[in-house]
This record gives sequence, C-alpha cells and structure tokens, in this order.
Amino acid sequence: MSNGKLGIAVIGAGRIGTLRARLAAKHPSVGFLAISDLDPARARALAEQTGADVYSGDNLEIIARPEITAVFVSTPEGEHAAAVCKALELGKPVLVEKPIALSLSDADEILAALKATGGELRVGYSRRYKECFLRAKEQMLHGRLGKVVGGLARVYNSRAQAFAILKRDPHATPVLDVLTYYVDLMCWFLDGNPPVEVVARGQSGIFKQAGYAADDVTWAIVTFADGAVINFGVSYALPAKYPTLGQSDRVELLGIEGTMIIDDDHMDHMLYSDKGIPHAYVPDHQVNMAFLGSNTAGDWAVGDFWGPLGNETRAWLDHLVTGNPTVHTTPVQARINLETTIAIERAVATGKPVRLPLET
Amino acid sequence: MSNGKLGIAVIGAGRIGTLRARLAAKHPSVGFLAISDLDPARARALAEQTGADVYSGDNLEIIARPEITAVFVSTPEGEHAAAVCKALELGKPVLVEKPIALSLSDADEILAALKATGGELRVGYSRRYKECFLRAKEQMLHGRLGKVVGGLARVYNSRAQAFAILKRDPHATPVLDVLTYYVDLMCWFLDGNPPVEVVARGQSGIFKQAGYAADDVTWAIVTFADGAVINFGVSYALPAKYPTLGQSDRVELLGIEGTMIIDDDHMDHMLYSDKGIPHAYVPDHQVNMAFLGSNTAGDWAVGDFWGPLGNETRAWLDHLVTGNPTVHTTPVQARINLETTIAIERAVATGKPVRLPLET
Amino acid sequence: MSNGKLGIAVIGAGRIGTLRARLAAKHPSVGFLAISDLDPARARALAEQTGADVYSGDNLEIIARPEITAVFVSTPEGEHAAAVCKALELGKPVLVEKPIALSLSDADEILAALKATGGELRVGYSRRYKECFLRAKEQMLHGRLGKVVGGLARVYNSRAQAFAILKRDPHATPVLDVLTYYVDLMCWFLDGNPPVEVVARGQSGIFKQAGYAADDVTWAIVTFADGAVINFGVSYALPAKYPTLGQSDRVELLGIEGTMIIDDDHMDHMLYSDKGIPHAYVPDHQVNMAFLGSNTAGDWAVGDFWGPLGNETRAWLDHLVTGNPTVHTTPVQARINLETTIAIERAVATGKPVRLPLET
Amino acid sequence: MSNGKLGIAVIGAGRIGTLRARLAAKHPSVGFLAISDLDPARARALAEQTGADVYSGDNLEIIARPEITAVFVSTPEGEHAAAVCKALELGKPVLVEKPIALSLSDADEILAALKATGGELRVGYSRRYKECFLRAKEQMLHGRLGKVVGGLARVYNSRAQAFAILKRDPHATPVLDVLTYYVDLMCWFLDGNPPVEVVARGQSGIFKQAGYAADDVTWAIVTFADGAVINFGVSYALPAKYPTLGQSDRVELLGIEGTMIIDDDHMDHMLYSDKGIPHAYVPDHQVNMAFLGSNTAGDWAVGDFWGPLGNETRAWLDHLVTGNPTVHTTPVQARINLETTIAIERAVATGKPVRLPLET
Repeated sequence: MSNGKLGIAVIGAGRIGTLRARLAAKHPSVGFLAISDLDPARARALAEQTGADVYSGDNLEIIARPEITAVFVSTPEGEHAAAVCKALELGKPVLVEKPIALSLSDADEILAALKATGGELRVGYSRRYKECFLRAKEQMLHGRLGKVVGGLARVYNSRAQAFAILKRDPHATPVLDVLTYYVDLMCWFLDGNPPVEVVARGQSGIFKQAGYAADDVTWAIVTFADGAVINFGVSYALPAKYPTLGQSDRVELLGIEGTMIIDDDHMDHMLYSDKGIPHAYVPDHQVNMAFLGSNTAGDWAVGDFWGPLGNETRAWLDHLVTGNPTVHTTPVQARINLETTIAIERAVATGKPVRLPLET
Repeated sequence: MSNGKLGIAVIGAGRIGTLRARLAAKHPSVGFLAISDLDPARARALAEQTGADVYSGDNLEIIARPEITAVFVSTPEGEHAAAVCKALELGKPVLVEKPIALSLSDADEILAALKATGGELRVGYSRRYKECFLRAKEQMLHGRLGKVVGGLARVYNSRAQAFAILKRDPHATPVLDVLTYYVDLMCWFLDGNPPVEVVARGQSGIFKQAGYAADDVTWAIVTFADGAVINFGVSYALPAKYPTLGQSDRVELLGIEGTMIIDDDHMDHMLYSDKGIPHAYVPDHQVNMAFLGSNTAGDWAVGDFWGPLGNETRAWLDHLVTGNPTVHTTPVQARINLETTIAIERAVATGKPVRLPLET
Repeated sequence: MSNGKLGIAVIGAGRIGTLRARLAAKHPSVGFLAISDLDPARARALAEQTGADVYSGDNLEIIARPEITAVFVSTPEGEHAAAVCKALELGKPVLVEKPIALSLSDADEILAALKATGGELRVGYSRRYKECFLRAKEQMLHGRLGKVVGGLARVYNSRAQAFAILKRDPHATPVLDVLTYYVDLMCWFLDGNPPVEVVARGQSGIFKQAGYAADDVTWAIVTFADGAVINFGVSYALPAKYPTLGQSDRVELLGIEGTMIIDDDHMDHMLYSDKGIPHAYVPDHQVNMAFLGSNTAGDWAVGDFWGPLGNETRAWLDHLVTGNPTVHTTPVQARINLETTIAIERAVATGKPVRLPLET
Repeated sequence: MSNGKLGIAVIGAGRIGTLRARLAAKHPSVGFLAISDLDPARARALAEQTGADVYSGDNLEIIARPEITAVFVSTPEGEHAAAVCKALELGKPVLVEKPIALSLSDADEILAALKATGGELRVGYSRRYKECFLRAKEQMLHGRLGKVVGGLARVYNSRAQAFAILKRDPHATPVLDVLTYYVDLMCWFLDGNPPVEVVARGQSGIFKQAGYAADDVTWAIVTFADGAVINFGVSYALPAKYPTLGQSDRVELLGIEGTMIIDDDHMDHMLYSDKGIPHAYVPDHQVNMAFLGSNTAGDWAVGDFWGPLGNETRAWLDHLVTGNPTVHTTPVQARINLETTIAIERAVATGKPVRLPLET
C-alpha cells in the first residue's frame, strides 16, 4: 500500500467487492484499506489477499473508522441501504453497486438519506466505463446523430453465469441485474429524455425448471418522452458452453442525422484452446472457445485489471483525490433505471403496457 | 432464348419484374418469354432488354396466351389479385411477389381462387433463398437448437431506398413491405408454431414530414403459440449515404440446446471508393462507402445475377421443369405474414396488444 | 432426370465428383448422366444415389459414350490428364477440378491436347463463384479501386480437414491444393498483370510428425508485373475442433482510389449446439461451435446445394445449353496458378526468391 | 494539480507530448509538471493548456530541475538521445516514445548511457496497453496456444494520417514508425524467441509521387528462432476518407494447441454522421463514416482520455509511485524492434533475405 491520502473501506467481500478491494490496493493514492463482510472469514481472506490494513465482520464499525475517507458498498443487491446510509451520515463519499436496490422503497430510503445528509453518492454501472460506450457518449455529446428516433440494446450470456448469479440471489433476475446496465446506458445517451412507457414479453423454461422465477429471455420496448422507441432485450439462458465469458451485447442508435452501431458481441476476438479456458466468474467452468473481452467487469492481465470495472473504480478514486467531475451514475438516474426494469418485469407479468414513472 | 420447354409470362415491368424477366431469359429451360405492363412502353422496353418474344399492355391477354406455361406476377403490391386469379383459372402456376396483398380481403380473394381452381401458387419471399437463411433453416430442420425460447430479427436500410419505395407506393410501409420478410423467416424457422400476439411501438418523423404515413422505426414483440418471444424491428430511415445498399439485418435464435447468430449486416464486406459506388435500386444515388452484398435482391456480377432473388427465381423455374419440391412461401404462410404485419401496425396505432389471428 | 438435352459424364466418384453428379442430376437441362470411377463399386453407389443412367469402372469408355455431350473430370489431382485429353479429342467440353495438375509437365500435356483439338476446357476454381468474390470481381471490372498497389489473401482451416485431404493424396499440400484458389482469385482480380516473383517461408511440425511433407503454415509475398505486392497465407493446421467447417479466409485489395475488404472468416454466422454439428467433409467429426457458411464447396440445405460449387456447376451446365460466356478459370490461367504455387513451395524449400515464369 | 509526490517533465510538446502532459496533469499522484520544447511558444501553449508549473525552450534545463522526478521524452523520433541520456545521468526514470531511435547507432548510444548509469528506461509502445493485446498476452502467459507455428499482424490507415506523419518527419516511414508496434507485440507474445530472418517486399507510388521515400504497402515474413513464421504488413496509403481514424489492424496467432484471432479493424463499431466526424490527428480533416475506437492512441471522451496511451501513461506513473512491475517495452526489446524494422526496409530495398541480428 502506498502512503497516499485515501482511506478506503470495501463493504462486502464477494466477487465485486474483491475487485474493488484489489483495485483500491493498487491505486497510487490509497493509503489505508479496510474490508468488511458479514462473514468475517471472507473479510479476512480478502484482507490477506489485498494486504488490507484492517478487516471486520461488522460493516458499520469499519465505515465509522476514522482512517476511512470513502466507501465502496459491494454487499448483495438487497442489502445496500444500511451501509450506504451510515457512510452518508458520516459524510463519507460512497460508490454503491448497481442496482441501487431491488425495491423502490429501499431506493427511496437511500435517496432520503442522501438528501438529509447532503452527501456524495454514485452507483456503479460499470458499462458506462467500457471504452466503446464512453466513446459513444462522447459522440452523443457532440450531437453527431441529431435527434434520436430509435435504438436497440440486447445482451446475451451463458446460463453458466446466470445460475451462478441466481444461486447468490434468486431475486437478481437478468432484467433487474443485467438489463439495468443497458437501461442506464440508453438513458445516459438520451440524457434529459426520460422513459415514459414500457411494453414487454418474456418466455420462461430453463430457469423456471431449476426453481427460479427468472425468464429465459425478455424483450421490452421502451418509449421515451420525445417519442423515441428503444428496444431492450436480455437472455442469460444461452448454453453453458457458449463462448461468451460474460456480456455479449449490441447497442444501436438511430438518429435523424446519423447512425451508431456498437457491436460488443466480441465475436471477432476469439480464442480456441484445446487446453480449455477458465471462466472468471463461474468456478470449475471452462470452455474451449471463448470470446476474449466478454467478461463483464473486465480482465486481469499481466498483473493488472483492465476493462469497465477497472476504469470505473479508478475514475472514482481519482475523483476523490482530484475533484475532477466523473460520469458515474447518479442516485436519481439509478432510481429511474430501477423503476424502468421493475416496469419491464411488471409488463411481462401483466401483459399490459406500463406507464412511467410508476404510481406508488 | 434457348429452345427450352417453359413459356414464361412476367406481369409487371417494374424493378422486380425486370429482374424476373432477365433471369427467365437466361434460364436454360425457358423457350418463350412474354412481358406485360399496364404501361405498354415499359413492357416494350423490358421486352427489348431481355429479348422477349412478345409484350403487351394487357396483362390478362398475355397470361392467356397458349405459349405461356407459368406466370410471375410482379405488379405493385396492391394489384396482385386480378393477374394471379386469371392465371390460376387457366391452370398456370404462379409466383407472385410478396406481400401477397396489402389487405386481408385481397389475400382472401386470392386464396379463394386458389381453392376453387386447385392451382399452384407461391409467394416470392426471396430472403428464404439467401444462402445464410437456407443454411439456418437446415439447422432448424435438424433440431440443433432444441426448443426455441426467443429470437431477434431486425433490418435497417437507408432512407434513400425507403423514399424510392414510398414514391412507388405510399402504402408499402417498411412494416408491410420489408419486415414481412423477417416475419416470414421466423415463421418458417418455427414451422408449426404460429404467432399469437403482438405488442409494438414506433416513432415517426422523417417520413411523416415528407408526407408519408410510414414510421421511421418500428419495434414489435411477437409471441408464438408455444410461448417463444421473437423481437422484430425495422428502420428504413437511416441517413441516405449510410453504407448499406439494401437490407442490413441480423437474425438470432435462442434455443434450449443451441444458439444461432446470423449477422447479415455485411459490415465486413466493405468497399471504399473515391470514384463513388452506384446504388442498384435508387437512380442517381451513389456512396463512397458500401457494404457489399447488402443489396436486397442480390447483385449483377460478371454478367449474371447472384443472390436471393436469383436463387429464388431459379429454384422456381427448375421446379417447373423437374417437379422437385421447393421452399417458396405458400399462400397460407403469406397470409399469416400479412396478418402479422397488419397486427404490428395496428398495435403501434392503438398502443394495445393485438391477438392473432385477427378478428375480421 | 428431366428429359433435357445434356448428356453429362462425371469421371471420379470421390467427394467433388459426388457433388458434381448430384448437381447435374438436379439440373433441368440434363437428360443423361453417367458416372465412372476406377473403383466400380464407388461408381455404382454414386449412380444409385443420383439416379444416373449408366456407370462404369472404365473412365474412357464412359467419356466415349455417344449420349455424353460434356464431361466433369473429378479424378484425384494427379490423374487428370488421361480423361481430359480423351474428352477433348472427342470434341466434348470439359470442366476439370483444380489444380489442373500437380506438375507442370502434366499441365503442359493437357494444354497441348487442348491446342491440338481446339476443344473447350475450363478448370473448377469454385472460389470464383462464391458470391462475395463475384461481387468483388465486378467492382474490379468497374475499376473502383484504381490501380492496385497491394493486397492480402489468407485462408485457415482445421487440421481435421487437412488430414482428410492428405490421407487421400499426400501430394495435395495446402499450398498446391488450397492456396491455389487465392492465387487464382488474385490473378483474376488483377487480370492482365501476372505474378513475376515469389518469396515465401513456412513452418512445419504437426503434419511432419504425422508423416506428411506439408507445412503447418506458409506465407508468401508475390510481386506482380506492375509492382503490386500481394501477400498470401495458408494454414490448415488449426486445432481439429476449431469452428470452421472449411475455408475461413480474408481477401483485401488496396488501390490508389479505393479499398476492398472481404472478411470471409464467417465468424459472424455462428451456431452453437449442445447436440453437435457434423462436418460435411470429415466423417465422424463434429463440433459444438461452427461458423456457418465456411464449408468450402457450399452446403446442402432444404434439399438443394448452395454455395460456390453449386454456382460453378450450374453456370457451366447453363453455359453448355445457352452458350452464354462464363468466368470459369481457363487452362492458361490454371497453369499460372500451378506455377505460382510450385514457386511458393520452392521458395520455402530453398529460402531464395523465385522468379516467374519458372525456368523449365 | 493535486499535491502528489511526482514531479514530471514532458520533453517535446508535439502530439504525443501533449497527450502525456494532459494525462500527467490529471494523474492523482502528480504534484509538479514541467513542459519543454525547442519551440518555447509550443511549450508555453501546452503549459497553459495543462496548468503546468513551468515551461521552457531548453529541454536539458527542465530535466535538471530538482522538482522533476521522472521524464517523458516525446521529442521527434530522431532526437531522443540527448534528453534520454541527460535524464538517466541524473538518475531520473524515463519513458521515451517509440521507436527508441531511427538508427541503431543512436539506439546504442542510449543503451550505453543506460548501462553506464544503471538508470530506469522504458519505451512507449502503447499497443501493448490496448486492452485486447493485454488480454492476448495474458493468454500467452498461460500457454493456451501451445507452441506457436505462425501468425499474422497487419495494420492499415488512411493516407490522411500518413501524410501528417511524413510532413513532421520524412524518415518516420510506416515500417519504422508503425509496423514497429506489431513487431513489438509479436516479439512480446513470443517472448524468448527472437526474430532471426526477414524477407520483405513493398510497392511505392502515392508517397513517392508526393516526394517521400515511404512505400505505400510493405509485407514482410519474419522467421523466429524456433522456426515460427510471422507475417507482417502495413499500408498507410488507404484513401484519405477511408473510415479508420488511426490503426485498423488484425493480429492472429496459430499454435499447436490453440488459435487466437484479434480483429482490431473496428469495423463493427461504426458511426455514420451527416454532420461529419473530425479526425483526432489530422487537422481540418473529417469523415462521414468512422470506425470508432480506431484512433491509435485512444480517445478523449467525457473529459478523460481512454485507450492504449492512457493506459500506458497511467501504468508508468502508477509504477513510479507504487513500484509495481509493468510491461512497458524494455530498451533491449526496443532495439530488437528497431533492428527488425530496419531489416524489413533493407530486405525490400535489396530484394534479398536479411539475417538478424544485423551485422554492424
């Protein structure tokens, strides 16, 4: 650990918390690192892995430590509120994982705490920090497409990863947990033009038979305030050995004066190996054919971590030091993302169009 | 013209009729070729171009000629019925262009004539005869995906071509005239599993300002009888100089035991030329950057025509000689395609889900 | 068999002969079909499969039959001369498989017979009839690139197929048997501008250990008469389960006024199936991940054969009926292809630049 | 500027120096920034743009300032030695732009200074820090391909950028200035297995007519010590309006046990805009069609810089603080890159194979 000025707490020692901690430990401005997890053994293991200064099974105690100047909340999706609110109350900036919560009431509790404390809170939608989407946003800022009339964002992944996610939290459906990234991206690209209506349909089978409520595939058409129609889709039910190692996605924007096509399926970055290629997310899973670069968070390579989550973590830590502005998702944006994905699931369940914002 | 055994009439000397006639003239089994068009000058010009034996401004007279053994009906979409019914009554096999009609009542008139005459009628959905989709269908016949749970088919084109289509027939909207191809493909792939419900949304602007009722972009989610959800989309409003020279499309099928991705955007077959590349469909239009192979019907090259419409025409003429089975769209399938696209437009117009089959 | 006017003999009942025969049997102008193979049992089996009228173990007898009006010579690469010369002497047009021969002396024997008889002979380089390359040639005919300064053509395939080829004929190395297609394509694109020099290098290992003289990978830089430099490469040593089912290739042309990129790797037409996908060429070989459309010759689908070899066969049979010109490789072009590939192997073997034409 | 611990000098205020300075200014650990350029006005302008603490027209004076702890040498390719040697003598770590020099004698002068001082020097081959190549290297470290038998690396760019480079330095040919990146990558991937021989050919025309010695296209086959044959190619002569905004490249590795294909042409990340898209490198140049992500160094987006040069700069600055190892090209590796590219140009010029290492 360098003797920098930041004291960072990582709350939650799961998969994403592990990445946050490892990245923080490597950041040149981090001088103190603390890990907590309700399971003290996991906190300890991650602390040892990262050379953290302290660890604990008590999240709130860690957040309250005086050395800590900022907090990553990487607990399971449904348990964000307590840690986030505690940090905000203590005036410590927070980056919380997406989605901000699994219910609007939890989200509103966090937004209320934010308002009460005047604190600083951002939500970790790492897709924004994928290079291709940063470039896309820059083009939108320059207005290169003119007015947008429509678009498409669809994401596929293998069921190997879906089952790993659902095992961790059966409420983290592909819509709430994954499609939320693309809702976030599109709302970001169409900034100032919120979603107003959703129609959606899904088909169940594979996950249902395994005892989960998640659909195998979901399609939604979301109309935005100015009439633009964006098509969203997610299927995390592809065969377990399908070559993607995470999200294979496409994002397309159709404007009056331009068209942007971001093919992020990674089909053209291919590795075939007779030796097998391990999956970063799913233990004991490997494939012979892989789309390199499809890991959702990014990849460890030559001793460092590269990709969206690395960029995102870095940008936030840098921001804490330099004060430079960043494009991390704001809590208000994150609440719209949550509301829209809840509307998609509701539209599938009822078969009816759903207006936004949702009536409470 | 070789002294073969087929006597072919091409009714309608527009763009597609021209291709049908030129292809028939080159077919080794065609021994007599006749052209008709309500505009006798166009009929004459095409007859001269193809070396046809006769031409006329009277469609029914040409169909009735004794030398004629089979008929292509390539009139505008709304004027198919008279020529088709005449040929069926005379016991002459017919290939009619898609869509079979622009209204269900016209379609039903044709279906009634077919039933009454016991004739032979197929509908020209040339996408089925694109090599990539023939291969895809073959895989479906082998059941390589297992049960299909969802899919996607979306098609983009430049507004240069859309305006050329709409100028010819303002009722030939991208949904009725183009998306119908992909409805046809998906119904073919999912054979025996018909569409039962549609939700859809669209956005208007570019075409509306030019005085047409067509939407700039339309998205639809179609649920099939077994619950599979297929997402359809069309935008023919891309900038006039966008590199596609016709349909840039993607077709994706998600099954329990397999996944098939057909990226038919043609982005990887590229020509840049400082000299300009003419557009096959739109006169006086050229681009510097083109996706080769994106012409919808196919391409003339080294003196012959290659691609879907060439394959389709050839297969039908061969079939007339050899009696071998073909996969041309049947009238019943074509009526389902029409019904589904009408349902998509109705779902956009009303904002409500639409059940299939439509109530009459 | 339709009662058409062509009487076709297929000499050689191997893999390509089988395709030629099956395609001829379906052609609407073929009225008589004969099969021969030095192994009469193979000839008989193919005759039964195709409904051929006669079969024989005596190639020359079949060629001489009076019903026969044209001949496919599909014998092994090294045994073309006898059958070709016999047919030419009898004034029957011939399509012989590529390469025209495996030695220049054999090629020259065929060319001498051609000159003596004034007959009609073409060589089956089916890549010319792949749609993407037909379109590319058309662009070249229009001069869309201006003067060409350089280019690239490289082709990869799995060793599963390479071993099947080498087992059939150990002299049919990837350079002589496969790279010849791309030499042919480039010489066709650069028509009138012959190759004049070759430098080349290769690496051996996999095939050598299995007892074959073939290299695992070969790269060659060929300079053409006007100075254009074209890079050729072939590796047929990719892992057996690599997803290609035949040739995965890229062809790129760089001109003063334009650039053409033909990515024919087929990576974007993908099928993953847990059920396994059989390989068209290699018996008892199947993969879970396949690039659809990568079969070299083309694919059987919905009862017909689609792709380069189908187009090529069709174009030749049509030509026999209609007399229309075709773009099948001429014997003089085929000899240049052979000479250039021999030069590539010689350049690898000697490490020295090799001038063309070769000194005899 | 944050009050961090690094004092950074950027020597040379050209295009790359500007990026280095802007990135250093944003780095959270940089507390002092100095700019120098032989043209004091340029140094001043960049200092103003970045908020640098000091600037000067005297490179050596800036390097010697006590606040400076590390130095970027971003002078023109031919003028690296003086600044590098000065910094090394003062014990200050240096990152110098690639190629290390334009002649082996200049390179050797730098290597001698390094040896004499025991200093720390790395060379800025930013392609190593492109995410796709970092991932590729990681796969190589795991041995996923087994022994490599061959490979391909080719890079294309528009002549718009080539002329901008040649105008700056007519000796910075595409081989010495660009292909060196891919020589570096391949030598890195094949670590421990040095190049031993080169054959190469080129064609001139466009640049020659404009008065430069550079070839329009160059192909080289490089044999490595264990016999692996790697094909290298570069053409920076594509039409000025071709959609790439920098390097469009492909890197392919063929191993006994695996295959890796990195298609980095960026064809699938496309923007078409009627409004025009400015080129980052070439002033007053814009295109309507662009491959997003093809800028060689990377892209400014949402206020930060993303891509290879950002990653590379960051990694080096981080390393200065944390001491963590990095994969920046070492001077010995850089000399091999230079030697190999010189050998390629010599092989083109003489038409003869060239052995490596070069005889001096």
